[in-house]
Amino acid sequence: MKTDKNIPYKIYLSEDEMPKAWYNVRADMKNKPAPLLNPGTGKPLQAEELYPIFCEELVKQELDNDTAFIEIPEEIRQCYKTFRPSPLVRAYFLEEALGTPAKIYYKYEGNNTSGSHKLNSAMAQAYYAKKQGLKGVTTETGAGQWGTALSMACSLFGLDCKVYMVKVSYEQKPFRREVMRTYGASVTPSPSMETEIGKKILAEHPGTTGSLGCAISEAVEAATTHEGYRYVLGSVLNQVLLHQSIIGLEAKTALDKLGVKPDIIIGCAGGGSNLGGLISPFMGQKLRGEADYRFIAVEPASCPSFTRGKFAYDFCDTGKVCPLAKMYTLGSGFIPAPNHAGGLRYHGMSSILSQLYHDGYMEATSVCQTDVFKAAEQFARVEGILPAPESSHAIRVAIDEALKCKETGEEKTILFGLTGTGYFDMFAYEKFHNGEMTDYIPTDEELAASFATLPVVEE
Amino acid sequence: MKTDKNIPYKIYLSEDEMPKAWYNVRADMKNKPAPLLNPGTGKPLQAEELYPIFCEELVKQELDNDTAFIEIPEEIRQCYKTFRPSPLVRAYFLEEALGTPAKIYYKYEGNNTSGSHKLNSAMAQAYYAKKQGLKGVTTETGAGQWGTALSMACSLFGLDCKVYMVKVSYEQKPFRREVMRTYGASVTPSPSMETEIGKKILAEHPGTTGSLGCAISEAVEAATTHEGYRYVLGSVLNQVLLHQSIIGLEAKTALDKLGVKPDIIIGCAGGGSNLGGLISPFMGQKLRGEADYRFIAVEPASCPSFTRGKFAYDFCDTGKVCPLAKMYTLGSGFIPAPNHAGGLRYHGMSSILSQLYHDGYMEATSVCQTDVFKAAEQFARVEGILPAPESSHAIRVAIDEALKCKETGEEKTILFGLTGTGYFDMFAYEKFHNGEMTDYIPTDEELAASFATLPVVEE
Repeated sequence: MKTDKNIPYKIYLSEDEMPKAWYNVRADMKNKPAPLLNPGTGKPLQAEELYPIFCEELVKQELDNDTAFIEIPEEIRQCYKTFRPSPLVRAYFLEEALGTPAKIYYKYEGNNTSGSHKLNSAMAQAYYAKKQGLKGVTTETGAGQWGTALSMACSLFGLDCKVYMVKVSYEQKPFRREVMRTYGASVTPSPSMETEIGKKILAEHPGTTGSLGCAISEAVEAATTHEGYRYVLGSVLNQVLLHQSIIGLEAKTALDKLGVKPDIIIGCAGGGSNLGGLISPFMGQKLRGEADYRFIAVEPASCPSFTRGKFAYDFCDTGKVCPLAKMYTLGSGFIPAPNHAGGLRYHGMSSILSQLYHDGYMEATSVCQTDVFKAAEQFARVEGILPAPESSHAIRVAIDEALKCKETGEEKTILFGLTGTGYFDMFAYEKFHNGEMTDYIPTDEELAASFATLPVVEE
Repeated sequence: MKTDKNIPYKIYLSEDEMPKAWYNVRADMKNKPAPLLNPGTGKPLQAEELYPIFCEELVKQELDNDTAFIEIPEEIRQCYKTFRPSPLVRAYFLEEALGTPAKIYYKYEGNNTSGSHKLNSAMAQAYYAKKQGLKGVTTETGAGQWGTALSMACSLFGLDCKVYMVKVSYEQKPFRREVMRTYGASVTPSPSMETEIGKKILAEHPGTTGSLGCAISEAVEAATTHEGYRYVLGSVLNQVLLHQSIIGLEAKTALDKLGVKPDIIIGCAGGGSNLGGLISPFMGQKLRGEADYRFIAVEPASCPSFTRGKFAYDFCDTGKVCPLAKMYTLGSGFIPAPNHAGGLRYHGMSSILSQLYHDGYMEATSVCQTDVFKAAEQFARVEGILPAPESSHAIRVAIDEALKCKETGEEKTILFGLTGTGYFDMFAYEKFHNGEMTDYIPTDEELAASFATLPVVEE
């Protein structure tokens, strides 16, 4: 196998080299992400209005568009050590299998029990909840990665944890439930009869398999109706991208040490947490005019917020109880087909990434599920790691870009985010192996119907 | 949290520091493990007799009692990089939760898709099979860890892989099957109708849930009846302990760097691969009189080879087609209760470890399943990692030893092997959470009946 003498297969930072502050890409954005609006008044939300829903410190982080570096508290850095640093891997085996001159790197976030990058923000959010003296937190989970991550974090900090899990995932991934229970969390399939909004959604759509949007509504209601609880969210929010910047910061530190500059940076995009975290420090350079990179967001063709959505104010949740965010959205009424990339089934997208995409700083593309699983299997067989369906969207495009290099002979350097493992997605792999997997692309008519649910907002 | 300034939470060796040779503990044993016997003649097996079953290079390693260090071929070291080095972790969180003055370290082998240490030997065995020009290999798997590991290794080296999976695990762990299929392996529940021995066992025990012993018989038969195939085994054999010595070598290198000497070294024991691998270099020191350590083998009370077995020649498999090995055994007719630690359900034990135990160089203890899961959950909630039931046997005893230190005030240093993750064992965790888990301890009468199946061998 052809290897580069100066580049080891895997690079782990030492504890001393680990980032001591998160990077807030908003500080370097000329066009800041649009503010959250109060759905009642249509006015930008003030911190005080968010305190009943979110922890105070997290609200401050959410609204802070100016501070470039925010210190990571010592307690969080200590907890990060249980699963960080994550390795930056040079995909020598994949390069050889593809016969490409491209140099492929991936930042692998799956080496923890939640199986994904979600733990980066869960640790931070649990810490701030505990620091505020709360009893517990509520949340929703799609694929179960975020719920697992939050359960783990709450267990470390001694907090109660109530998880509303999208019904289709709850049924397809029963093992996730037991992992969460191992960490002491309670798990409810959503929509449920435990909340008013759950009852309403079930009455309107009796057979629904749920969506992240529904589950968010239930979790928010539960937080605001239980004393000493707040709601926490694993993606989409500015604070989450801030915490996830540790992925990009670690990756950049490792690449800088090796003297490597990526040409293309690729991440899968559901709500945007992984992609936003991975690209943040690189995007900062681009925004400041210090360096140029191609950024590619990869989303499922079944839920194409960037590539077919509208850049508009919309509700973050199906139940329309959350604030309005300006983002690329398919409409909060959009319920995607039950594809297996549970973490990519969200109708909207991070406001930060939406603004950056709108301003032309990044590209987006969508891929079909069966192509994604082909890439996943090809990757597993040479690199060893069995990837999550979500992560495999990035693998698909990384392989495609590497194959383009094979045609042109270009030695491009590709970095992609491998967000997690597929150990809890074996039903989906089984379908793929048995040739029972289908692709689903919403029609223009379906999207038009969904866009009709967009609220009218005067900006 | 109280931490030691000079000891990081996690220690990864650099690529330069990785072992370049395996260590063969037999070279330092005064009493060598007894030779394998031909079941027909009762005479020690010669290499030529083993070649139809095993790869030639592996036979040489199996029979080599003298060479202390055997070089790890470059190709294997390259493949090791996909998942090694594994971290040595200082269990600061567990120490704090226990309030113990003990210093606890664990060598964590679960950060790979097989979820366990098994990949260390699978890579080696697949490499030697490929080097010999074989088409493929056959094997058995219990919990599925070994089968997954071998599938991964065969995929990397381009070999066909036929796996006979103990029926109870095949049914309890359907996802394991799909992981193996992802890597291109074929998986058959054992006993099966595909082999003569499978048919015979099914005729005699129609309702059997299988055992490692049965599955071994089927895999060996398949290897010897298919052109270009050999049989490979994930535990018990001397060659496997040799390959697994990389665990102990890495751990010792890391501890030496930190200036730390463990007082107690603990590992779970099924066939002995993890325990043997972990303790090898430390045991070498003890055998040479250079240092002293307490070694503790932990086995399930439901399958207590060391603590209640006999040190005698026995068949390695239920079908009695394999060579006779001298070991601590419950009798090859012993079929353990369907407890969930699938990897610890073997009736025998590594000949090397058996000899060392017999000669007083190590201790053994057995623990009940519900106590094991209590330890597993306690560990998960503070250290983050959700451990495999097998590994949790070692956790149980590590915690017990740390609590003894709390009573006595001794600051002992404990090292244990955390062999893998429990992601594919969530049915067992679910039973535990629901209070449906039971303990099973074989009666003296049951064991006596099983001992009656021991062959009569003149030594």
